[in-house]
Amino acid sequence: MSESVTIALDAMGGDNAPHIVVAGANIARRRFPNVRFLLFGDREEIEPRVAKQRGLAEFVEIHHTAEQVAADDKPSQVLRNGRTTSMWLAIDSVKHGNSSGVVSAGNTGALMAMAMFQWRNLPGINRPAIASFFPTLRGETVMLDLGANIACDASNLVQFAVMGEVYARTILGIEDPTLGLLNVGEEDTKGNEALKTAADTIRGLDFPGEFVGFVEGDDIPTGAVDVVVTDGFTGNVALKTAEGTAKLINGFVREAFRNSFWAKIGYVFAKHSLDKLRSRSDPRRYNGAMFLGLNGICVKSHGGTDAVGFATAIGVALDMIEYGGNELIAEQIARLNLDEAGGAT
Amino acid sequence: MSESVTIALDAMGGDNAPHIVVAGANIARRRFPNVRFLLFGDREEIEPRVAKQRGLAEFVEIHHTAEQVAADDKPSQVLRNGRTTSMWLAIDSVKHGNSSGVVSAGNTGALMAMAMFQWRNLPGINRPAIASFFPTLRGETVMLDLGANIACDASNLVQFAVMGEVYARTILGIEDPTLGLLNVGEEDTKGNEALKTAADTIRGLDFPGEFVGFVEGDDIPTGAVDVVVTDGFTGNVALKTAEGTAKLINGFVREAFRNSFWAKIGYVFAKHSLDKLRSRSDPRRYNGAMFLGLNGICVKSHGGTDAVGFATAIGVALDMIEYGGNELIAEQIARLNLDEAGGAT
Repeated sequence: MSESVTIALDAMGGDNAPHIVVAGANIARRRFPNVRFLLFGDREEIEPRVAKQRGLAEFVEIHHTAEQVAADDKPSQVLRNGRTTSMWLAIDSVKHGNSSGVVSAGNTGALMAMAMFQWRNLPGINRPAIASFFPTLRGETVMLDLGANIACDASNLVQFAVMGEVYARTILGIEDPTLGLLNVGEEDTKGNEALKTAADTIRGLDFPGEFVGFVEGDDIPTGAVDVVVTDGFTGNVALKTAEGTAKLINGFVREAFRNSFWAKIGYVFAKHSLDKLRSRSDPRRYNGAMFLGLNGICVKSHGGTDAVGFATAIGVALDMIEYGGNELIAEQIARLNLDEAGGAT
Repeated sequence: MSESVTIALDAMGGDNAPHIVVAGANIARRRFPNVRFLLFGDREEIEPRVAKQRGLAEFVEIHHTAEQVAADDKPSQVLRNGRTTSMWLAIDSVKHGNSSGVVSAGNTGALMAMAMFQWRNLPGINRPAIASFFPTLRGETVMLDLGANIACDASNLVQFAVMGEVYARTILGIEDPTLGLLNVGEEDTKGNEALKTAADTIRGLDFPGEFVGFVEGDDIPTGAVDVVVTDGFTGNVALKTAEGTAKLINGFVREAFRNSFWAKIGYVFAKHSLDKLRSRSDPRRYNGAMFLGLNGICVKSHGGTDAVGFATAIGVALDMIEYGGNELIAEQIARLNLDEAGGAT
């Protein structure tokens, strides 16, 4: 991008804030030229950390607040009492045109509630969704919703499909992405009424995506489709199950190399290949869940990530801004006229 | 077990029937003394295969039928028209006291529908559930429901918890098993009303299980609890996602050892350790999903398993029979008086 882009960072969100936020900003500044940051949080904590990051100071502006959202604050609480928190003020800066997007590693529920409250939904979107991409056998797959909506009706799922298609096409650069609806079987008769109605509606959509129908849990890791559409309950469980299983097996493999003398020798020879494998599925490379369907760009970083991972989340926000993802979603939703297509209930 | 136990096998169910069923029976016969089999299916196909398995013939009795349930038959169809199929007749043999349990690698939906229709539910059980155990970081975990019920109310989940506790205690031999309800967060405020009501009810149960509250997707592979309780939609997606992810990463690791000369050398040294690791998570060791809550013992084998895996599924049925699992569930349900405890809706 040629012009300067300003990103608002909730400097106090996440397990290792503000350190990883500040260090992550410095990595992102070198990786993505022309980015500037508004850092919201405790000036006394942030300022010395900025000073330690060589070259960062001239790219950031600190906006002091002593308040922050805690990890266990309820969304309803923070909407009432959290309007001087770093999270609220970061979102507010987008609303007032002082920044083009927000990144936070803080409380997900609070972040979504505040962003919905301040920005409202894009026209035609009933409920925003949380979307993320992750490595699969074939490349990268987008899944949504990952937890914004416990229960979803058919119209929600149809809108998620439209948003997910735009996201995969613009951010991952996949032409004519394939989409699947997550279900317990591939047959048309499987699943509840919302899934069946959503499948019928998506099948009838005239959009660049190619809808393949229902997919199952094991289609997620293989990357059978570019976009997996599901409700927030199932998506959240599936993503955490996949991440947990990957972590567990990687741990088993590491352990296998430690439990005998010969295995340790073997590790020395295989180290280079194994390191490449590890790097491929490094969760820091896939950090940054996008809140899709809002009148603004908001990216949620994993709370436990490090500076490298936080920089990746900043990159997700920058991509969405550069490619005009929200504008494309709004256009697509308007063009498809989902109400008449039976997408809304 | 000292007395002889007879198991009915649907010899025609699964991708590789009847071969793996017959070969699996012979492995099971050597592994579990005093077991006998009724083989239901096409005599012409079964008989020569039995003859090839040394020593098996005297332990089996073939019940001929030319009919079988196809993988894509709908449950409603087979209930009407499938009463001469190998699956139906195997289930029927339990009803008439000719066998003590059924194992089939065939169509899951048809198997559940036929078993429910012929046997009915255990007293106090509104809906049966599919339960299976699998390897985790800590050992083995039971999860249910894995797909029998797309939607579950609070009373279903409470009954699943009671059944899962008995299953883990008797079959896995875990004293005072820990239980968790699968949710999108551990806080009491997370999830839908059915989950919250079920959590309150289970917390109040006076039973040997220790209910820890809500667990998340990544708690499944770590084995955070001995029993994971969930609805059939989420359970099915979670199990398939975990299995698919495990398979994918094991594939990546194998690939990593092939993609350079040095890695291949390393593999030679590490082979023994890696083989042990693979054996630990060998899906054939965890084959056999139990249908809990029925007036009879029915185990569903993976359709694509081999003879070793099918023998494991037979072992699951034998354990349930030997330990009187169904009687223990019925006693526990009667003792807990779930209706008064608010478990039924």
